[in-house]
Amino acid sequence: MIFSEIDTPAVLVDLDIAEANIDRFQAHCDAHDLKLRPHIKTHKLPMIAKRQIQAGAIGITCQKISEAEAMISEGGIDDVLITFNILGDQKLRRLRALAEKVRLSVVADNIETVAGLARTFADAKEPLSVLVECDTGSARCGVMTPEAAKNLALQIETQEGLNFGGLMTYPPVGQEETVQAWLTEAKNMIKASGLDVPVISNGGSPGMWQSQDVPVATEYRIGTYVYNDRSLQERGVCSWDDCALSVLVTVISVPADNRAVVDAGSKVLTSDLLGLDGHGHVLGRPDIKVAGLSEEHGVLTADAINLKVGDRLRIVPNHVCVVSNMLDEVQLIRGEQGLGPCHVPARGKVW
Amino acid sequence: MIFSEIDTPAVLVDLDIAEANIDRFQAHCDAHDLKLRPHIKTHKLPMIAKRQIQAGAIGITCQKISEAEAMISEGGIDDVLITFNILGDQKLRRLRALAEKVRLSVVADNIETVAGLARTFADAKEPLSVLVECDTGSARCGVMTPEAAKNLALQIETQEGLNFGGLMTYPPVGQEETVQAWLTEAKNMIKASGLDVPVISNGGSPGMWQSQDVPVATEYRIGTYVYNDRSLQERGVCSWDDCALSVLVTVISVPADNRAVVDAGSKVLTSDLLGLDGHGHVLGRPDIKVAGLSEEHGVLTADAINLKVGDRLRIVPNHVCVVSNMLDEVQLIRGEQGLGPCHVPARGKVW
Repeated sequence: MIFSEIDTPAVLVDLDIAEANIDRFQAHCDAHDLKLRPHIKTHKLPMIAKRQIQAGAIGITCQKISEAEAMISEGGIDDVLITFNILGDQKLRRLRALAEKVRLSVVADNIETVAGLARTFADAKEPLSVLVECDTGSARCGVMTPEAAKNLALQIETQEGLNFGGLMTYPPVGQEETVQAWLTEAKNMIKASGLDVPVISNGGSPGMWQSQDVPVATEYRIGTYVYNDRSLQERGVCSWDDCALSVLVTVISVPADNRAVVDAGSKVLTSDLLGLDGHGHVLGRPDIKVAGLSEEHGVLTADAINLKVGDRLRIVPNHVCVVSNMLDEVQLIRGEQGLGPCHVPARGKVW
Repeated sequence: MIFSEIDTPAVLVDLDIAEANIDRFQAHCDAHDLKLRPHIKTHKLPMIAKRQIQAGAIGITCQKISEAEAMISEGGIDDVLITFNILGDQKLRRLRALAEKVRLSVVADNIETVAGLARTFADAKEPLSVLVECDTGSARCGVMTPEAAKNLALQIETQEGLNFGGLMTYPPVGQEETVQAWLTEAKNMIKASGLDVPVISNGGSPGMWQSQDVPVATEYRIGTYVYNDRSLQERGVCSWDDCALSVLVTVISVPADNRAVVDAGSKVLTSDLLGLDGHGHVLGRPDIKVAGLSEEHGVLTADAINLKVGDRLRIVPNHVCVVSNMLDEVQLIRGEQGLGPCHVPARGKVW
């Protein structure tokens, strides 16, 4: 019985593998003179963030203020970039409080966000560093042209309480040349208008091994790499042995020779497909398909399922960043050794 | 500004609508002489479970022991059916403890589960009621033939510490005739072998208004009906006005005339599609598509998006049961009036 002391379903995190993942990509960034700023959305654990910083990361990335608040609560993390337009008086007050505790930077892609930040930091001791978010092809947030980036940079720099901090992009996958051209043009326009561009922040786990192909970037933000998952394995970014997070499940029913049911459904594995067929990879049983999820049931199919009620399996999810956000605790392991539960302080911190 | 005192993203629950939904379906069940046993997986709130019981429900349904433990912690709920094969010493010990606090019944579809229950309850003061889970067409858990149901019923009844409690099914949608035939055959076979079949438990929100079309059933389990959602509206089961849960979001970016981005992604709305196109319905803006979700971003598209940074919207999710499980708190409202936050005790209780 695998990890018989751990009740199922449980999210297992193998620290040996996570640490190796951290060190491997840190070495890659060091070799290419790229600063690394891991995104904590994947693990939401201060313990792992500190390990990332210890390995050489310059600080962390958070998507939401509440994530940052949870991550710095234990100390040891003093440099945070929040890659989100922060709006509204409640959030701006919290942002100001956060800036008094850590070296903080944020992003903006619109003048309304800049105006709120400027109002909030007008009388601050230190100006807030604001990067311009650039849409280099992902069609999410971001100004849509290098010229718009330059204009917003100038508007930021003219605000008392704010400094223009540079450029940030969430890049489209596999389009390094386009991203390099876009950011270079924006950088040159901004420099021509008299401003320095101290930081150019690129990111993304799918393109991690091509991160050096956008040499205009000074730093790289990356989340999933710490655990890896089925989506990255399928893209050839990692192997199953590099997957640090798995979901430990128990077979609760074997209704037919070609079907079994386990005790984890979409409330653990989530419904994220990321373009894949099926809901995860059963370690050691590549013949099994995680064919369907109800909220608390996972339906496994195979030509011959060959499982018994009570058997335990480990499933590598399609997308780890959402799975580590489902439960209040993960179970830490090293190989076959269980180290006990670990609370996930930034779980569910979405505001 | 909608609910300006509530920070976003937030899960709003309109109690006026939820109470009307509870009362409407209770009246339907009363009219058809069907006992109602709501599934708490949708709301995970003892307060709402008590309201369901007050309206006439005979007890609650839970999928996991940890849900049941959380739901009864405040008192006022004394009848629980757990519709899951319970396995393993840790869970069986907790089940025994639970049986000393409430009138408890569980299900089984295999002899291994029955053996564990029998071992655990052999010396109990009161026998545990065990229903046979039947696969009437959903291909999830359940014995696959009426004869197998009869055989397992007899095996349950012969165990000291257990009583055969009846039949339970999670039925396929829109196949009431098949379900009625299956359960009737099983019931008749079991009665012919000398056992009574005290309970026949059917369920499901999509078929709620056809629940009387399986007259062999004595009780109905149902979860989503309390809040309703886009999946039920699209099936014609409810209207938008019957949707009690919505996600309050803020527009954080309007990069183009046909696109805006809000501050809720898959970590609030989840990736559940339930066969639908898009990730939710923007109340009052049927022209908008919730076209894509990142973890913390929702991308809205429309021919003319006509939104400003800072605008607030309410999104009815595709599937409420997973959304109410994402955050530690929901915000209670009645119409336009905010009543404050409410902790969700059974959130994340998957074991």
